[in-house]
Amino acid sequence: MRILGIDPGSRVTGFGVIDIDGQNRSYIASGCIRTPGGELAVRIKSILRGIAEVIETYKPDVAAVEIVFVNVNPQSTLMLGQARGAAMSALVLADLPIGEYTALQVKQAVVGNGHADKDQVSQMVQRMLRLNGAPQSDAADALAVALTHAQHDSGAMKQLASQGLTIKRGRLA
Amino acid sequence: MRILGIDPGSRVTGFGVIDIDGQNRSYIASGCIRTPGGELAVRIKSILRGIAEVIETYKPDVAAVEIVFVNVNPQSTLMLGQARGAAMSALVLADLPIGEYTALQVKQAVVGNGHADKDQVSQMVQRMLRLNGAPQSDAADALAVALTHAQHDSGAMKQLASQGLTIKRGRLA
Repeated sequence: MRILGIDPGSRVTGFGVIDIDGQNRSYIASGCIRTPGGELAVRIKSILRGIAEVIETYKPDVAAVEIVFVNVNPQSTLMLGQARGAAMSALVLADLPIGEYTALQVKQAVVGNGHADKDQVSQMVQRMLRLNGAPQSDAADALAVALTHAQHDSGAMKQLASQGLTIKRGRLA
Repeated sequence: MRILGIDPGSRVTGFGVIDIDGQNRSYIASGCIRTPGGELAVRIKSILRGIAEVIETYKPDVAAVEIVFVNVNPQSTLMLGQARGAAMSALVLADLPIGEYTALQVKQAVVGNGHADKDQVSQMVQRMLRLNGAPQSDAADALAVALTHAQHDSGAMKQLASQGLTIKRGRLA
């Protein structure tokens, strides 16, 4: 199963793609979609296009999105919401099943501690995926949410397997 | 020129379609897209589909969106942002040029007073489009933002006309 993790932001949207095969997790790709300044329509378009390209290139089976929530000020919360709405739209348009995880769930799943800091998350991502260096910060968060989904999903998949069912391309088979 | 006005909200997205021919404005349609409760992906899908259907049915040349901003609490500001991001995505995907107007600009354009209340906006919309009854509240706001775009655009179009240019299907011709 291939998982696309997304860490949406108003200026940068991080993405990370991993493959899960039983207990094996492997790194496929990660990166950042930078949103240009200026008109909202232009920024929305760049997020829609960027994520559509990632989906087309890596053909994930499922997506996992971080429930971001940094309450700096209302204006930036609205901007973040708009970026997140565009990112979700791109995933919905590609018909991907979407898992959503809070930052707490991600830290808990990856580091085993809901109060872990960004560095700890990045280090665990590096270790779990056997990366040579630290991924970019937004990409690391996206890989972390993909790993979180893998963990949640493996529980769900074991349950399905015990009933003789499997998930293929994000759907029951 | 046919204008689609959108008033995005997390629970209800209002839409209003008007035609502009010189100084004549005529009402074409208006209504509300209600967003179901539950998962964000389902809500995003309903906004994308709802607006896509309106665009397919009425084939507008341009869109105008209200820059909504009600700071009740951070969580609802984020939700509103997500709904607005999905609405903008639907317009971007349909390749519509998009005008954005603040509530102040809408009230100024429709009532002539930036501090007008919702009732005054609704009454002026009714009068300007010669409607028999008051439109639904969210639809009235969407019609108001379409009327605002008409007013801003007619200024822009007069300028273009003086240069021998016109706008056709939202693009310069």
